[in-house]
Amino acid sequence: MKVAAIQQKCGNDHNRNLLHTEKSIRKATENSAKLIVLQELHKGEYFCKNEDHALFDWAESIPGPTSEKMAKLAKELDVVIVSSIFERRGAGIYHNTAVVLETDGSIAGIYRKMHIPDDPSYYEKFYFTPGDLGFIPIHTSVGLLGVLVCWDQWFPEAARIMALQGAEILIYPSAIGWSKADSKEEQKKQRDAWITIQRSHAISNGIPIIVANRVGYEKNYLLEDEGLNFWGSSFIAGPQGEMIAEAPTDQEHILIAEIDMKASEDVRRAWPFFRDRRIDSYSILLKKWGY
Amino acid sequence: MKVAAIQQKCGNDHNRNLLHTEKSIRKATENSAKLIVLQELHKGEYFCKNEDHALFDWAESIPGPTSEKMAKLAKELDVVIVSSIFERRGAGIYHNTAVVLETDGSIAGIYRKMHIPDDPSYYEKFYFTPGDLGFIPIHTSVGLLGVLVCWDQWFPEAARIMALQGAEILIYPSAIGWSKADSKEEQKKQRDAWITIQRSHAISNGIPIIVANRVGYEKNYLLEDEGLNFWGSSFIAGPQGEMIAEAPTDQEHILIAEIDMKASEDVRRAWPFFRDRRIDSYSILLKKWGY
Repeated sequence: MKVAAIQQKCGNDHNRNLLHTEKSIRKATENSAKLIVLQELHKGEYFCKNEDHALFDWAESIPGPTSEKMAKLAKELDVVIVSSIFERRGAGIYHNTAVVLETDGSIAGIYRKMHIPDDPSYYEKFYFTPGDLGFIPIHTSVGLLGVLVCWDQWFPEAARIMALQGAEILIYPSAIGWSKADSKEEQKKQRDAWITIQRSHAISNGIPIIVANRVGYEKNYLLEDEGLNFWGSSFIAGPQGEMIAEAPTDQEHILIAEIDMKASEDVRRAWPFFRDRRIDSYSILLKKWGY
Repeated sequence: MKVAAIQQKCGNDHNRNLLHTEKSIRKATENSAKLIVLQELHKGEYFCKNEDHALFDWAESIPGPTSEKMAKLAKELDVVIVSSIFERRGAGIYHNTAVVLETDGSIAGIYRKMHIPDDPSYYEKFYFTPGDLGFIPIHTSVGLLGVLVCWDQWFPEAARIMALQGAEILIYPSAIGWSKADSKEEQKKQRDAWITIQRSHAISNGIPIIVANRVGYEKNYLLEDEGLNFWGSSFIAGPQGEMIAEAPTDQEHILIAEIDMKASEDVRRAWPFFRDRRIDSYSILLKKWGY
């Protein structure tokens, strides 16, 4: 199966960004992609760089304008699309939500980001209520998708729970970048760690993975020196974590690769980790710390 | 703190192997190592390549000859040693056990391998009763050690549980290699996956890691073509998974590196994964499969 991750720059004109995304989706399907993953919050610039009450205006319902646009495209192009939307669920309840659009234009399912970061320039706890749906894979015509979002990528628990429930592929829309404050060496470490931890989820679960990350520099409109340089590096890896395709750090890219959805069967026979899990001794995983 | 991983070849003379290990330990301490990690079952050849009842004779009690030899060395050289022993606990009860020897010659603690593999050439389920001590870090004069063994390395759960209980460093004695049946490409994938999954435990938990793996070709005395080529590649990585030192794939090596035991504090402030774990939604981790 051919799959695609679309890595793009975003400006502050939402309609223009969406039009640009639409063009990339069309190109990907011209190249036979059957599953397309968009980057996190692809409609606009990454707005969590500051805490600003006015920006809740950017949120929308699901279904809503963006999900409907994507659903129409999915139907027209006969492709499954993973979109990422700032969701307004109700007054004072907003989520960072991935929406999976099926080839018939329906919503196959949604995933509300469960792990919410909060660091300087990533003030997501201000904007996003932590997801309350748990980690449920989404049934689609191209397979059972383990859709997670960005910060989730650092938590082996999330990937494992998806796999335990039959997810056949892991998917991470993402928006991560470098701040100017970090040295080149530190920047390299961060990107390497980000790639390594995600490849490790493919390995420990024996399933392929698609990551679509934002690219390009985005200003911080309140604090001039606090812009973020999103590092791109979208990638597609196989069920042993082997890198199949990787996008550049500094350019837009439509990353397309063939993944073998049947390889998991062989990989898991060779490395049958699920057989040997010690569930009798894992209860501490349900604690925040210590015993 | 300087730490060492000792990567060696083993022949079928146990005393000679242990003498060789002793020399390597002395060299490591001459280079100021304060913590030394030995490879899995370092006394002899990796015997699980076949199922042979006679080989249970190789097991020993703890304390016993090997642990006492190591304890004496630890005391004489003022160093903490992580040894790995085929433990006879009672008739019909054998374990694959790591023993940590303190600088005063005492046993700081033991860890009995919890995840037991069973693949062609790695018939460990025949020899080893799965550990019943759980995942408990071991207090030593050089820090709280999260000691795990080989196959455990594929399970993010094990590393996480150690870290949740305060482990300051992860340690993996290991014995993994290539079979002739695998292509060069497959061999590369396997080694890469093995390095990646272990680096990922350092990353997701923000602590350094030491891995000591066996090296060299060992015959299978029953099945001529079924020998194993242990791939060495012992390594030491920091709390962002950054590689600090790495041993070759095909030679014995005393791998020594400086690790900064205080770096975890900074790394975990920058990437506070423990703060954001969704323990309310992790219960499926305690299931074998599905709901």
